[in-house]
Amino acid sequence: MMNIAAWLMFDGSRYHGWQVQQFDATVQGTLEAALSRLCGHPITAHGCGRTDAGVHAERYCFNFRTSSSIPPDRLPYAANSLLPPDIAIKKAIYAPEDFDANLSCLKKEYTYRIYNSRIRDPFYTGRAYFYPHRLDISSMRVAAAHFVGTHDFAAVRSVGTETKTTIRTVHWLEIAEKEPFIEFKVCADGFLYNMARAIIGTLLYVSEGKIAPDDIPQLLDFKDRRQTGPTAPPDGLYMTRIWYNGEVGAMMES
Amino acid sequence: MMNIAAWLMFDGSRYHGWQVQQFDATVQGTLEAALSRLCGHPITAHGCGRTDAGVHAERYCFNFRTSSSIPPDRLPYAANSLLPPDIAIKKAIYAPEDFDANLSCLKKEYTYRIYNSRIRDPFYTGRAYFYPHRLDISSMRVAAAHFVGTHDFAAVRSVGTETKTTIRTVHWLEIAEKEPFIEFKVCADGFLYNMARAIIGTLLYVSEGKIAPDDIPQLLDFKDRRQTGPTAPPDGLYMTRIWYNGEVGAMMES
Repeated sequence: MMNIAAWLMFDGSRYHGWQVQQFDATVQGTLEAALSRLCGHPITAHGCGRTDAGVHAERYCFNFRTSSSIPPDRLPYAANSLLPPDIAIKKAIYAPEDFDANLSCLKKEYTYRIYNSRIRDPFYTGRAYFYPHRLDISSMRVAAAHFVGTHDFAAVRSVGTETKTTIRTVHWLEIAEKEPFIEFKVCADGFLYNMARAIIGTLLYVSEGKIAPDDIPQLLDFKDRRQTGPTAPPDGLYMTRIWYNGEVGAMMES
Repeated sequence: MMNIAAWLMFDGSRYHGWQVQQFDATVQGTLEAALSRLCGHPITAHGCGRTDAGVHAERYCFNFRTSSSIPPDRLPYAANSLLPPDIAIKKAIYAPEDFDANLSCLKKEYTYRIYNSRIRDPFYTGRAYFYPHRLDISSMRVAAAHFVGTHDFAAVRSVGTETKTTIRTVHWLEIAEKEPFIEFKVCADGFLYNMARAIIGTLLYVSEGKIAPDDIPQLLDFKDRRQTGPTAPPDGLYMTRIWYNGEVGAMMES
């Protein structure tokens, strides 16, 4: 069995997230169906993380084991012809036997896109969060800086998934103005359930004057999800970068 | 009754074109339902032209008459809250009593977007034509120049709609490389049914070596739709500019 690692892109609008569910269409389920057909035996796709319903990925990594002899460089064309048009494999390579898209991951970056204009743009429906009010970028930047570093992020995670610890390291949380978009980029060694969206929702509360920028450290200390901002809608969230050692890392940064 | 002119944007993926049909969702039908509700009386929206199923518009103009007292500058916000997220009114103003979005139009520009890469991009599904083969831009540019000017365009129109004459003036037909996109911009005083897409399909035939670039004048002379290229898919087609005299013209260029 060869272990193949691949770069996946998907528009998550139509899917109930990554993970296979019994009744709803998911990215994993759709991908496994196409790969199983292509390889001629049942395939299990190991994703780099769960994504929520409606969340997108420009760079998502998964690996799978197969006894088929399809060369990885031909996999994208062959698989894409069997995948729906909102999911595509961009690249694939042979990975070391012990490579696991989730366990081998060093860090990840998510980008959250807000369409900040008084009139919505029909071409960004489902692909950016339409927010027609003025944003206080300076206050959000002051607040954002408090999230950077190693902290207990229990205050910005939704319960529902088990985790050994709620301590994570946020490497950066940057806000860029790309009129009419505002882009938030957050990179961490790992993300708790809904953590990226809860951080964005909290920053929007800061912009709206509902939370003071310098209250963030205290709110993190309280570890109380009810005192931070709401979970921002999934529409604006994209997985945009992921880091690994070795050749898989080089592929995902190419 | 006041005559109001408005700038409309829509992602046409879900619609069977502009014009009201008995059973299928159309942009006109959806728009008229929202405006009728807003204005409190039945509204007829006069569009600047029919668009086909799946065709998009960044700048589309329509006008309608209403006895309601809603100020045009408030119309976009009020109407957009009643419209689905893939249709939005961007601006609106009072127009002269005799203004008609179709009859008053001086010229229009369509943009056709090809996503020219070996791997498709899930985020452009339905919004660009995915064409994974090499394009011969130079040959297409030679062929494109032959379409510019006043000609009988019967060779690149589908039958099915009545028209007094098939003579039109193409002001420009330009090809821009914006990797991984190729953008065609075609401006004319008017477009016959499927004319923009038939021109693009013919240019693709030129790129594929099926038509010689300098055969275009002769093919136009033959006036035989079967000898030109196929009608390119609607996904890549956007109405991008439209010209009028006076204040409506200024609004649509703003």
